[in-house]
Amino acid sequence: MAFLSWRKPEEIKTSWVRIPPGPNVVRAREADGIVVPAMPTGLANSLLVFCMAVWVLRFGHRKFRDERASMHVALVARAFGAEKIIFEGEKDGGLLQRVEKIADEWGGPFEAEYAPDWVKFVERFKKEGGCFAHLTMYGLPLQGQILGIKKKSKNCLVMVGSQKVPIEAYNLADFNIAVTNQPHSEIAALAIFLDRYFEGEEMGKEWKGRRRITPARIGKIVKVCAEE
Amino acid sequence: MAFLSWRKPEEIKTSWVRIPPGPNVVRAREADGIVVPAMPTGLANSLLVFCMAVWVLRFGHRKFRDERASMHVALVARAFGAEKIIFEGEKDGGLLQRVEKIADEWGGPFEAEYAPDWVKFVERFKKEGGCFAHLTMYGLPLQGQILGIKKKSKNCLVMVGSQKVPIEAYNLADFNIAVTNQPHSEIAALAIFLDRYFEGEEMGKEWKGRRRITPARIGKIVKVCAEE
Repeated sequence: MAFLSWRKPEEIKTSWVRIPPGPNVVRAREADGIVVPAMPTGLANSLLVFCMAVWVLRFGHRKFRDERASMHVALVARAFGAEKIIFEGEKDGGLLQRVEKIADEWGGPFEAEYAPDWVKFVERFKKEGGCFAHLTMYGLPLQGQILGIKKKSKNCLVMVGSQKVPIEAYNLADFNIAVTNQPHSEIAALAIFLDRYFEGEEMGKEWKGRRRITPARIGKIVKVCAEE
Repeated sequence: MAFLSWRKPEEIKTSWVRIPPGPNVVRAREADGIVVPAMPTGLANSLLVFCMAVWVLRFGHRKFRDERASMHVALVARAFGAEKIIFEGEKDGGLLQRVEKIADEWGGPFEAEYAPDWVKFVERFKKEGGCFAHLTMYGLPLQGQILGIKKKSKNCLVMVGSQKVPIEAYNLADFNIAVTNQPHSEIAALAIFLDRYFEGEEMGKEWKGRRRITPARIGKIVKVCAEE
């Protein structure tokens, strides 16, 4: 079920399109040929929503050299609204653990996984109806493409490179996207992409993690809360 | 002359407030107590503008450990509309050269310099009327503060840390700003800050460097042009 899922009300982001149960659900099913999942027990107050889910594919991770940059990519993915990061390149169990520890402490939902074959992964994602966007300084300007990306599918897989990206990625991509055509940073490019994708709404998200910051004019206020 | 300067028409960003020569200039002088500079010879077609100039202060650079991250910070500063980066921490001549080489190849204006005493640098900047913003996950949300920052001054110095930032920075800052209160990346935080500051206009900037990319749906098109 790529597009439709049951969510608890507190999980629903304002940027998602809500579909109240009833005639709309039927219309969605008829129009898009989507099978609506049975409502899980115990989620009586849930709503059926179109999720705008974004996953991030980090291409070409190298175990020691890219440790810090790949961690930054993962943290940005989480903080700016993506739900999952998939690492490609050298398998790095420590990195996966560190990312999941952050999600555990600061809140989710956010997952990290390793894909041994990125081409297969992307092909499967596209086959299920998702949109595959590749961030590259050689691509078309983000500001002119973002609506097209969102229209193509409610699920988006966005790829950022570390090492040189093979031409295969350019060919597989539904959109090769440039966050400016200037040299800068895949970390910054990802942040701007997600910020445009979620139209800034991700900045106001309330996180339910154990560690929470109270915004302060000066100094640092961190609260460590009990599990909810 | 912190606020007013003569610019050639092609250098003028749309986000700057243009002041046509004549009565408006006099009004600006009267209202703000600003001395208008004499028009330089050979710039007969120039306009007098209020520049929204942003400089970036990279705190706590460590020569080998932060090489890549500090370079990313500098590249993001340039690509998203800042005019200068100032490095603090270990002096790193190679880094300064690499940054200036990028500006030389891909276009400017963009400068890099080293500040041996960041506190003095910030104090002087503030004394000249500039606004000092410090990006920290503990600060107040960017989205509520950005207008205040722009109103306070047309010149902004924005600080991003590498190592732990001393409390002095929090006290000196006119604004302690959080680009989300979640852990992520100073590189991403800077990009989002600049994007909000320039309201996205920096993404459409035309660069006049020797190396230029022609945006492409697939593949890479780079042109190496003669000096203009």
